[in-house]
Amino acid sequence: MSNTTTINAHAANEAGGSLEPFTYEVGELKPNEVEIDVHYCGICHSDLSMIDNEWGLSEYPLVGGHEVIGKVAGVGSNVDHLAADTTVGLGWHSSYCGHCESCHTGDENLCSEAQGTIVQRHGGFADKVRADAASVVVIPEGIDLKSAGPLLCGGITVFNPLVQFEVKSTDKVAVIGIGGLGHMALKFLSHWGCEVTAFTSSESKREEALSMGAHKTLNSRDEAEIKAAANHFDFIISTVNVKLQWHRFVNTLKPKGRLHFVGAALEPLDVGAMSLITGQRSISGSPVGSPSTIETMLEFANRHQIQPEVEMFPMSQINEAFDRLKSGDARYRIVLSND
Amino acid sequence: MSNTTTINAHAANEAGGSLEPFTYEVGELKPNEVEIDVHYCGICHSDLSMIDNEWGLSEYPLVGGHEVIGKVAGVGSNVDHLAADTTVGLGWHSSYCGHCESCHTGDENLCSEAQGTIVQRHGGFADKVRADAASVVVIPEGIDLKSAGPLLCGGITVFNPLVQFEVKSTDKVAVIGIGGLGHMALKFLSHWGCEVTAFTSSESKREEALSMGAHKTLNSRDEAEIKAAANHFDFIISTVNVKLQWHRFVNTLKPKGRLHFVGAALEPLDVGAMSLITGQRSISGSPVGSPSTIETMLEFANRHQIQPEVEMFPMSQINEAFDRLKSGDARYRIVLSND
Repeated sequence: MSNTTTINAHAANEAGGSLEPFTYEVGELKPNEVEIDVHYCGICHSDLSMIDNEWGLSEYPLVGGHEVIGKVAGVGSNVDHLAADTTVGLGWHSSYCGHCESCHTGDENLCSEAQGTIVQRHGGFADKVRADAASVVVIPEGIDLKSAGPLLCGGITVFNPLVQFEVKSTDKVAVIGIGGLGHMALKFLSHWGCEVTAFTSSESKREEALSMGAHKTLNSRDEAEIKAAANHFDFIISTVNVKLQWHRFVNTLKPKGRLHFVGAALEPLDVGAMSLITGQRSISGSPVGSPSTIETMLEFANRHQIQPEVEMFPMSQINEAFDRLKSGDARYRIVLSND
Repeated sequence: MSNTTTINAHAANEAGGSLEPFTYEVGELKPNEVEIDVHYCGICHSDLSMIDNEWGLSEYPLVGGHEVIGKVAGVGSNVDHLAADTTVGLGWHSSYCGHCESCHTGDENLCSEAQGTIVQRHGGFADKVRADAASVVVIPEGIDLKSAGPLLCGGITVFNPLVQFEVKSTDKVAVIGIGGLGHMALKFLSHWGCEVTAFTSSESKREEALSMGAHKTLNSRDEAEIKAAANHFDFIISTVNVKLQWHRFVNTLKPKGRLHFVGAALEPLDVGAMSLITGQRSISGSPVGSPSTIETMLEFANRHQIQPEVEMFPMSQINEAFDRLKSGDARYRIVLSND
């Protein structure tokens, strides 16, 4: 290979390690690939999970970063719908098999062969990143680029269920957990037209939730407040990864209501079939969305000027940025900006 | 009240008691009521649960029976869509509030004020039974009346989810538990056009399941057989009321698949959010259906000549019929015929 490119990244060299400068060489672009000059990259909690090898999937050196905003630097020979200098985004997935039932029906995000941008690949904590063109989306003009990164993973994770489960503008919807994902859910839902309730155990977030579009707030750990909301919600989206008393939340669903998980609580759900049967209720989960749904989200966010709330760090201060993430105090998402 | 009618029924006088002749008097029909001459009445497992006061709802003397086929004997002054001698059916519900959101949207079966035919009322193990006209459905000509009773509760319980969750004719569907409910599910699904799999732990039912429309059978307690069906089903309907390894069944669902409960397993479901998230899967439950869905079912059953498999007992041998139910050997549903 005569044409090589040097990519300057930040990598963890072991589970839980700090992020150190890491340079790697790549050859000519493959026919379906795109190379992106990274301008901004959000930090997602799953970057930390991968750095810490929580899921047993990690290989080191590990370059995280999968909420990329940048410009096309080059395209492979088969790519004719993306040109140099186009502003694009790259999220959790960087390729799909292209031929399974999920890919054929527009559900590429459910493709069992889909590759994670930071899973056995090098991600966006770098000056450049590569991905299959099928997973790269054009960022519409009008989107604030500095804050847009978190839409590509956290944002689509909470937007996607509204599309998949046809949440109606007249629905009463609750969001459990007002953090990186939850705060974006509040913004989407209020512009969707819904009655929006924020469940949070943080007193300090109550006012902020109201300012981001919630009509009311309830304490997610207060049994009495939860009980008083019996039979109220059409849809509840949980963004937390801790165990709550899920059967209590099931009881706040109206008939035909749905409790939907995008945060991975690891313990089995303590819900009995009977509470689902009597009210024809559902429990479900979903991961990130397909490229088409990401595009739909970007158009919706652009029309309503919905932006993630972000704290900016220069890429050179990536370790400080991760310390901030670990503190739990970030309001509400962290974005790295290439120096 | 000058006009009184004597109803000859069979009642349990205490929890777990045998059924003894019981006569009660009723006055003039209320404006919205219908009186039905009971010709046939199916026995459902929930009759036994009520006789045994398993749900703490029972009052004695308790007259069970909520799978009634009979003829209109009289109608109240407000009832103008049902006339004497019309062949009708009565299922689990015998009245709805008529003014809640569920009633207003055609989901009367989810009305929280809906009255059970055998809950603090006297049911169909009798020569006559009364119910609100809103819960009484006309049986179309062509339906076999002797075997039709079980459609009104067991049948609608498995038919309703096909309508509610829009099961497609191209779907791959599994039924867990081939008993009173499950065998009707097999018949509906095979005529629905689906690929139908029967999960049963009974060797003797495997051949019968195939004869009732299943394309294949799997052992619901054989881990290897369940594992081999990974990512296969769009929809699984569970009719059992025992605890199975539910997380194994979740893994047999395709992306976007649904594990649906109509049998009330009482222990919490041992399913984690992560297995729902990765494949956008759902878990849900539902009770019986609305009058409109019952009518849709009867039309479908009539078109395809779908009949429950029944064992007939004369009403006078109701205790023998219950012994047969308790034996677990009934193939597949028991119907009482008024002598």
